[in-house]
Amino acid sequence: MQRVTATILTIGDELLIGQVIDTNGAWLGQVLNSIGVWVSRRVLIGDNETDILQALDEASASSDIIIITGGLGPTKDDLTKGILNEYFGGKLVLHEPSLEIIKGIFEKSNRPMLPVNIQQAEVPDVCTVLLNSRGTAPGMQFERAGKLFFSLPGVPYEMKGLTEQYVLKAIQTKFSLGEVSHRTMTTMGLGESFVAERIADIEDHLPGNIKLAYLPGHQAVRLRLTEVLQSGDSSLIDTYFHQIKERLSEIVVTDQDISLPELIAALLIKFNKRVTTAESCTGGYLAAGLTALSGASAYIHGSVVSYDNAVKENLLKVPASVLKTEGAVSEPVVIQMAKQVRILMHADYSIAVSGILGPTGGTEDKPVGTVWIAVASEREVVTKLCHFRYDRLHNREATTLQALNLLRKLIEAENPLPEFPG
Amino acid sequence: MQRVTATILTIGDELLIGQVIDTNGAWLGQVLNSIGVWVSRRVLIGDNETDILQALDEASASSDIIIITGGLGPTKDDLTKGILNEYFGGKLVLHEPSLEIIKGIFEKSNRPMLPVNIQQAEVPDVCTVLLNSRGTAPGMQFERAGKLFFSLPGVPYEMKGLTEQYVLKAIQTKFSLGEVSHRTMTTMGLGESFVAERIADIEDHLPGNIKLAYLPGHQAVRLRLTEVLQSGDSSLIDTYFHQIKERLSEIVVTDQDISLPELIAALLIKFNKRVTTAESCTGGYLAAGLTALSGASAYIHGSVVSYDNAVKENLLKVPASVLKTEGAVSEPVVIQMAKQVRILMHADYSIAVSGILGPTGGTEDKPVGTVWIAVASEREVVTKLCHFRYDRLHNREATTLQALNLLRKLIEAENPLPEFPG
Repeated sequence: MQRVTATILTIGDELLIGQVIDTNGAWLGQVLNSIGVWVSRRVLIGDNETDILQALDEASASSDIIIITGGLGPTKDDLTKGILNEYFGGKLVLHEPSLEIIKGIFEKSNRPMLPVNIQQAEVPDVCTVLLNSRGTAPGMQFERAGKLFFSLPGVPYEMKGLTEQYVLKAIQTKFSLGEVSHRTMTTMGLGESFVAERIADIEDHLPGNIKLAYLPGHQAVRLRLTEVLQSGDSSLIDTYFHQIKERLSEIVVTDQDISLPELIAALLIKFNKRVTTAESCTGGYLAAGLTALSGASAYIHGSVVSYDNAVKENLLKVPASVLKTEGAVSEPVVIQMAKQVRILMHADYSIAVSGILGPTGGTEDKPVGTVWIAVASEREVVTKLCHFRYDRLHNREATTLQALNLLRKLIEAENPLPEFPG
Repeated sequence: MQRVTATILTIGDELLIGQVIDTNGAWLGQVLNSIGVWVSRRVLIGDNETDILQALDEASASSDIIIITGGLGPTKDDLTKGILNEYFGGKLVLHEPSLEIIKGIFEKSNRPMLPVNIQQAEVPDVCTVLLNSRGTAPGMQFERAGKLFFSLPGVPYEMKGLTEQYVLKAIQTKFSLGEVSHRTMTTMGLGESFVAERIADIEDHLPGNIKLAYLPGHQAVRLRLTEVLQSGDSSLIDTYFHQIKERLSEIVVTDQDISLPELIAALLIKFNKRVTTAESCTGGYLAAGLTALSGASAYIHGSVVSYDNAVKENLLKVPASVLKTEGAVSEPVVIQMAKQVRILMHADYSIAVSGILGPTGGTEDKPVGTVWIAVASEREVVTKLCHFRYDRLHNREATTLQALNLLRKLIEAENPLPEFPG
């Protein structure tokens, strides 16, 4: 059986001039992939008839499934419905159930309905209507030459609702799909090319239905195995995943598909520990990353941003003499910051960072990108000196990842662990 | 003069399965738009020769400029360079200057170079090399039939560097784009459609060479006027910009194209004042935003993240009784947090926030999205109660913008100002 492919067609001028970052396409890619549909391309175009028609022709020539989002609003620049109506040779008819929903929405918000809003309930008589309970624009399903076309609103909340309620089912009914599974691990400490070199022989012997992808990022390289199973095949993805994991064991940060803050959160919750941070150059970014996750109150109670030496002295008890002789960006300073903030915040673990992120502030012996990191527990303090060569914000990101990974190692060293957390 | 159009071609399987959200395309759309190039479509495809070649043919048939990002890494799944080499009928030759940069990067990180890394310095002999000082993959520029092709790494930091250093200049040299100028203002307090309604008559009378774009964001709506001048035209952009500014005066936050943190930083530096933050629900995000800017040490010395009540009590002296009777998310609590952190950090101004960002933690009388904000100076404390309806991270962003805008008003009220800061 050959693979079922989809094109995701996103419509809206705002996407072309970069006003809006398209998240619909990524979300659709994930859910389609999870049911065994391969997204072969994503196309973003403006609210323009010629471009939309051309994209429809290209997509239906190359894909089994075409999912269109956007351009269904009530304003002049929303052309999608009319164009699809012509493209499939239908005529617009009023869809009563959709009209009822629209009326309800306007009653709830006590706003008068305009003619344009009633027109939103009109649909081509050649489509299957996907009733949109979350908004005023009904979804539409068309079929031609064995291919499925879906037109969905661009509002993510509405698009997701229709996809989960109708689109995936319709696809699974129409096509016999293989079963797709992924395994992802994150490594730190080696560049992409070195990781690839290390596992070249394993990669060369992967079966045809398993693909390896490298997802390089700041300080980290993620590896993802994807396996497509047809009925009857037996899965080998775990076997190869573990082979690679073994080969890279000392640089593997996690074998789960989660971010480093998510990993730290999972470890802290698992061992019922709390962390705190004392931040100079990152200025609160570490704490913000740790508190960005729901449920953070379980593992972080507070942090100190000590951007200025006065705060390091007064709140974190760093001796003025040390600041004077060693400088704020030095090992003894981050050690004292880490020790003191852990006590101040009654935490089990602490992270302290002090560095020069740039573009200014560098010196001969401490150039821009010089960062000292310390992580502390009740028992010990571990430090690391880093030299980054990015711009200010990327240096901040790199500092954060290195600090979190240093903390991970300390937590794992001090707590009984299965081979990998999560 | 007809419109110069571009296609942005983004290559990488990870984008199709939604493991990564493409931000390069949006950024490129913005910068191309700002120099007067119209992005007519964006296409995202996998690391697959057939798809890449097809996309190249389509793009060169419909656009003057084709910008390709991604697929330049050292690993097997990176095919772009080889395909472009064939497409333009070249042969790969070693590019010494790029090799020097690669060597330097590996020396800095004390790692041995691999054959694949040397291969990264090979480029088609039919391209103009765009020297990439930020990474190991050189950029490439091709020209065919009057169209420009650029191949850039997918790493945003490297892609942006090459775009700013070479790509924009090459485009401006090759095409007569007219002289493009922008004026941008930020408003807060009215939704996009209401802002549009307020200035509809002005918008209707804009000359053909001036376009108005709405850039709606969280809590704020930015308006951007873009004027394209041909030689001989006289500029009218300022006239219309001021008309709109007058009409919207009470909701205009700034008439500069800067972010709210940049605006606050400019005000604090201008009046030689310092700010601090006491953050519960934002968990350091406010401080991180204020310290993200170079030169932050001039206006922020430190902050306290008081995520847990114990920290509010011990460090910020919020009486346990008040926390008990009023709850952590209450006006008296943020008032005390703001007052105390201002004293603790020896600052002129302070921001305190306490709220429920969700998805959990909401109650009957304090649902998810309830946030109390206080800003304090030596003279006064101003508070605001907000009710947001987004997810956790968007509620955090909205809280930050409302808090910074509240601070802006306090600073402007207490300091002599020109009509608009910046």
